[in-house]
Amino acid sequence: MSESVAVVGAGLVGCLAAIALAKRGYKVTVFDYRKDPREKSTTDRNLRSINLAISARGITSLEFIDAEMAERVLRDIIPMKGRMIHHLNGRQESQIYGLFGETINSIDRAVLNNYLLDELDRFDSDKVQLKFSHKLKKIKFRAPEELQSCIFSAEDGVEQVYGVDFIVGCDGCYSTTRDQMQREVRMRYSQEYIDCCYIELYIPPSKTYVEEFKGNFSLTPDHLHIWPRHKFMLIALANKDGSFTSTFFGPWKLVESLLKSRSRVQGFLQENFPDAMALMGLENAVECFMSYPKGALMCVECEPYHVPGGRCIILGDAAHSMVPFYGQGMNCGFEDVKVFMKLLDANHGDRAKAFQAYTETRHKDLIAIIKLAVRNYKEMSHDVTSMAFLLKKKIDSWLGKLLKDKWLPLYTMVSFRADIPYNKAVAISNRQNKILNVIQALMIASVSVLGYKALRLCYPAIRRLKRS
Amino acid sequence: MSESVAVVGAGLVGCLAAIALAKRGYKVTVFDYRKDPREKSTTDRNLRSINLAISARGITSLEFIDAEMAERVLRDIIPMKGRMIHHLNGRQESQIYGLFGETINSIDRAVLNNYLLDELDRFDSDKVQLKFSHKLKKIKFRAPEELQSCIFSAEDGVEQVYGVDFIVGCDGCYSTTRDQMQREVRMRYSQEYIDCCYIELYIPPSKTYVEEFKGNFSLTPDHLHIWPRHKFMLIALANKDGSFTSTFFGPWKLVESLLKSRSRVQGFLQENFPDAMALMGLENAVECFMSYPKGALMCVECEPYHVPGGRCIILGDAAHSMVPFYGQGMNCGFEDVKVFMKLLDANHGDRAKAFQAYTETRHKDLIAIIKLAVRNYKEMSHDVTSMAFLLKKKIDSWLGKLLKDKWLPLYTMVSFRADIPYNKAVAISNRQNKILNVIQALMIASVSVLGYKALRLCYPAIRRLKRS
Repeated sequence: MSESVAVVGAGLVGCLAAIALAKRGYKVTVFDYRKDPREKSTTDRNLRSINLAISARGITSLEFIDAEMAERVLRDIIPMKGRMIHHLNGRQESQIYGLFGETINSIDRAVLNNYLLDELDRFDSDKVQLKFSHKLKKIKFRAPEELQSCIFSAEDGVEQVYGVDFIVGCDGCYSTTRDQMQREVRMRYSQEYIDCCYIELYIPPSKTYVEEFKGNFSLTPDHLHIWPRHKFMLIALANKDGSFTSTFFGPWKLVESLLKSRSRVQGFLQENFPDAMALMGLENAVECFMSYPKGALMCVECEPYHVPGGRCIILGDAAHSMVPFYGQGMNCGFEDVKVFMKLLDANHGDRAKAFQAYTETRHKDLIAIIKLAVRNYKEMSHDVTSMAFLLKKKIDSWLGKLLKDKWLPLYTMVSFRADIPYNKAVAISNRQNKILNVIQALMIASVSVLGYKALRLCYPAIRRLKRS
Repeated sequence: MSESVAVVGAGLVGCLAAIALAKRGYKVTVFDYRKDPREKSTTDRNLRSINLAISARGITSLEFIDAEMAERVLRDIIPMKGRMIHHLNGRQESQIYGLFGETINSIDRAVLNNYLLDELDRFDSDKVQLKFSHKLKKIKFRAPEELQSCIFSAEDGVEQVYGVDFIVGCDGCYSTTRDQMQREVRMRYSQEYIDCCYIELYIPPSKTYVEEFKGNFSLTPDHLHIWPRHKFMLIALANKDGSFTSTFFGPWKLVESLLKSRSRVQGFLQENFPDAMALMGLENAVECFMSYPKGALMCVECEPYHVPGGRCIILGDAAHSMVPFYGQGMNCGFEDVKVFMKLLDANHGDRAKAFQAYTETRHKDLIAIIKLAVRNYKEMSHDVTSMAFLLKKKIDSWLGKLLKDKWLPLYTMVSFRADIPYNKAVAISNRQNKILNVIQALMIASVSVLGYKALRLCYPAIRRLKRS
């Protein structure tokens, strides 16, 4: 008889984990406390979305699970080849991500999630069951050879008990699975909010078809748009229908002070993002800024990720919630599923060994990307406008193009090279950075020496000029 | 009308907070999920106690709240003037804590807790109510000017709702109050287990009265007894009846491996603690080691400690669970109450201001003592047997005696000087440590030079001796 698993959470990572497990013959039941999002009216949007960018780690993980499935669920992605920096004076500046035309890809979270749910529906109902409106209340952990007992409260408030061989918790940064695991194992756990609030905004589709952009886009869709203003910023990612989902990020104190009056918000937006306001409609943007929910950004680190004996494991945000600034949250979650499946396969389904190996091998990579993501806020909101940063980036990408696989910029390793684990990418980048610093210093020194020599050469002429 | 407060947790800190608040005219209700411990039979002990050592911070805090109450609840303390190191060969070595005869004081947790509960019973029932068998389920935070809503499940499982002006959470390291606060405020939070398991053991009273110890003690009661064995250790603190509560501390892996067989435990205890086994009775100790619960040791750090608007605050282990190795857990919790009351008094009962000031001023001190406590495990289990450590300690206490208030050893500042905040104590100690290191290096150098000179002097004589 096949083993049974409860997947808690029907979000992106939960769906992918369920697909992967079903394909390996497990009897899968997916639980989610929400209603089926495909049945919701579109007005039910939660107004807290930050558009996703799927890149190599996400795509190769989908392909590892099922190449045809990957093709189907990724049919709506919009490739983005770089950042488009919007300066205050309206000038736009393209900064290309890859060395050889690689792209990250914009996708609406809700669309991708629905496609993955559709994939689950393709399985027979004795292999995969979807149970919405089921909120996990408690896990009673039993001996590894017994059934683990999960207690859900269903829509009518009645408690329902499910016995399963094991549980895969993909229930996000406020994970109940993780809470329950903490009663069974001694878990190192930390959560930290960064001082940054986010607000969803919206750029509607252009009223006319734009030839240059091949759609009703009012900005080029093949870039991730950034309005970096040092302490705060605006970003925008294209949707298939020509609209852009835009997000404002800024310190809580700033936002709270702005929200004291409508005119403050209006003045602030118009002063700092005049071109974006022209596209959003200032009145509309002010309305959204004031009334839409204000999101908090949290980092979660923990260890271990499993309950011994192969009884429970957590993947995705439940195990490593990170801030969105490296575009790796979902990619990393999908990679979790790939790594987990590879370990299950390598251990011939011995869950005790596979779960243990997952915690042991995955931890350093998860910590590495959580830290990188925090660091990238400064890069996106501030560094991208700094000369020194851009010079270093130029040298970095020039070396990358010249030396190919011998020199890999960090962004390339994180976003385009699924074969290099996060932790290794950081180690390689640290080594390269030392060399970069030396080159940069040498360049600045050479320029100074040349300048000095030029001055020496000109000096007699200048003196003569002065005297005359 | 007086303001109402729910104190969650009738442990040591909860009781003291309730007494302090009642004395300030608040209408206090104390809730605890346990039954009244005074009604329990003595066989109901939880077998996880680590005896407490109350020192200056704890005592002055009790006295600040109510000097007469302090005298009553501290009537059973046993002063301890130093550590008694039990070497493997049976030799006992006294290491005095204070410079001028200061002591820390052994007290049984249950006894002190019961005395504090008795103090609460002295208030009129319209001022203080005690509600046992009430488990906090949820706090619904309302606007600051409204009543906050606390939902408890009572013994019969029925939910009861209490509306209060504010909540003081003293519900220990697994605090439900803190959990509920995390839904209202963005809380930085971390928990970490140290790799150390503890097991309660017991040295029974001596059968005869021992003149030297003035009681039925089989070891001197005026010391904290330590059997330091580097990676693990045993400690023992005296009780009023002549018995000692003893605790074994050691790595989880070691304990798990020992527990595989009774003979392993027996061999281990006999080999490492022969003198302690003679007092406990080897069979009895083995039985306790095998069957008593194995405790985990957790550090909790968080921030903020309050919900804005003076709606809720957490004190004691709920806010800063620490390992027991500096004997400061309860002392720090009592000091929390003192600091909190001083801020309430200074702000004339303006809770919003007082709570905010508490988080702002208390955090650095709590972080400092949490870190000190972890560091002290190495000192207790290992350093106390090292020559270099003892030399440094000698110089430290010699300087302390010589320079009085101008030079204060860290242990003195933490345990005997309630007027120096933890964080300041650490800063002063770091400064002094630099000087200590120089003195120690100079002493070692002088000894080396003297040794060399002595050798040079003796060398001709030695050569002559050899030649003859």
